[in-house]
Amino acid sequence: MKAKREALKSLFTAVKERKVDGDITALLMLINSIRGIYTTSSCSGRIGIIEEPAPGAKPLARWLIKVHRPIEFGEAKESLKKASRGIIFLKSQPPIFHVVAEDLERAKRLHELGLASGFKYTTFKAIGRRYLIEINATEYLTVPLGKDGNVLVSDEYLRFAVEIGNGMLKRSKGRLPRLERNFMKLREELGEDELFHEIKEEFRTDDQRISFHSGFP
Amino acid sequence: MKAKREALKSLFTAVKERKVDGDITALLMLINSIRGIYTTSSCSGRIGIIEEPAPGAKPLARWLIKVHRPIEFGEAKESLKKASRGIIFLKSQPPIFHVVAEDLERAKRLHELGLASGFKYTTFKAIGRRYLIEINATEYLTVPLGKDGNVLVSDEYLRFAVEIGNGMLKRSKGRLPRLERNFMKLREELGEDELFHEIKEEFRTDDQRISFHSGFP
Repeated sequence: MKAKREALKSLFTAVKERKVDGDITALLMLINSIRGIYTTSSCSGRIGIIEEPAPGAKPLARWLIKVHRPIEFGEAKESLKKASRGIIFLKSQPPIFHVVAEDLERAKRLHELGLASGFKYTTFKAIGRRYLIEINATEYLTVPLGKDGNVLVSDEYLRFAVEIGNGMLKRSKGRLPRLERNFMKLREELGEDELFHEIKEEFRTDDQRISFHSGFP
Repeated sequence: MKAKREALKSLFTAVKERKVDGDITALLMLINSIRGIYTTSSCSGRIGIIEEPAPGAKPLARWLIKVHRPIEFGEAKESLKKASRGIIFLKSQPPIFHVVAEDLERAKRLHELGLASGFKYTTFKAIGRRYLIEINATEYLTVPLGKDGNVLVSDEYLRFAVEIGNGMLKRSKGRLPRLERNFMKLREELGEDELFHEIKEEFRTDDQRISFHSGFP
């Protein structure tokens, strides 16, 4: 309960600071309003160009461009001018949600819900007495484009790769409405969480500007 | 127990028919000799070129070449001649192990073991009363090379992409010795499974040629 309280405060703060992807705000609110579960980090799906100085060294990676909607060929090409050091990749990644469940029964339900919503890489981990469910899909694209500032692909190829990456992003994001419907049903079953409404009220008083997108009361 | 018996029979049959990747046979034998756990499908890590007629339609995909060691530029280029329909991808994939645990305690131990061995995508799923642990790493590369038989990349680029894919494959396979050492320790803790030795004997009588690689008694 204490962990959920902290998680909710972080979420409402992030929404207030406009750090949450607009197309999943309503869904995150819905998930967090369910008793016994809450979200940690999530992403609505993205595509972009990243530069990685050393293989596998994530902390050193640098996005040249990153958007949560299909990318345009022009902006992808333009961003390549900023490349300087390391391998340049075009990456397309599906929506991903990290949901904590307070017991194994809920964890199993969330796992089934993710799979039934078309997120085939949904899995869970046990962390102490809690369970972390990752709702994830298979549409990952990682295309090397060049190295140390040198682009090794033609415009024709870049256009082709961007098209494939955009197609994957649209396909994976296209499952979000189904995921939302399934969470609606889950809330009917598991019930609403008082704590969610309590924290929501705190933030509402604090800042009237927080608005909750359509699909959420 | 009945499920493990069936799984062991499938494994020994696959080894006998030389359908198991040589570089993980000893490790698979080791895992299956531990009480309360067994493997289902596994792969020692691979790189290859695949043709996918429709996005996401795995059953229709066709490998033009697929090897469980670094690929040579020449054989990659040669395989492209066989391309005919759909998007052509170069894919590099790390080792992956599916391990069933007969209780939650073992599932948690396996999860920790995978992470501690450098397999950062290790997760688990509950399937009925059993747990399926996926020991998996992050080194996935998916590079579109062309479409409908037309290759859209230069030799220089193909060489570059193959080099990156091979580097990822070597890095991920490089963790197998550590994984094996950790399973050795786990066997000391959880104990050996009588059933494993029983089935092994059955197959030994059946065919004396089955040999178990170094590192395994």
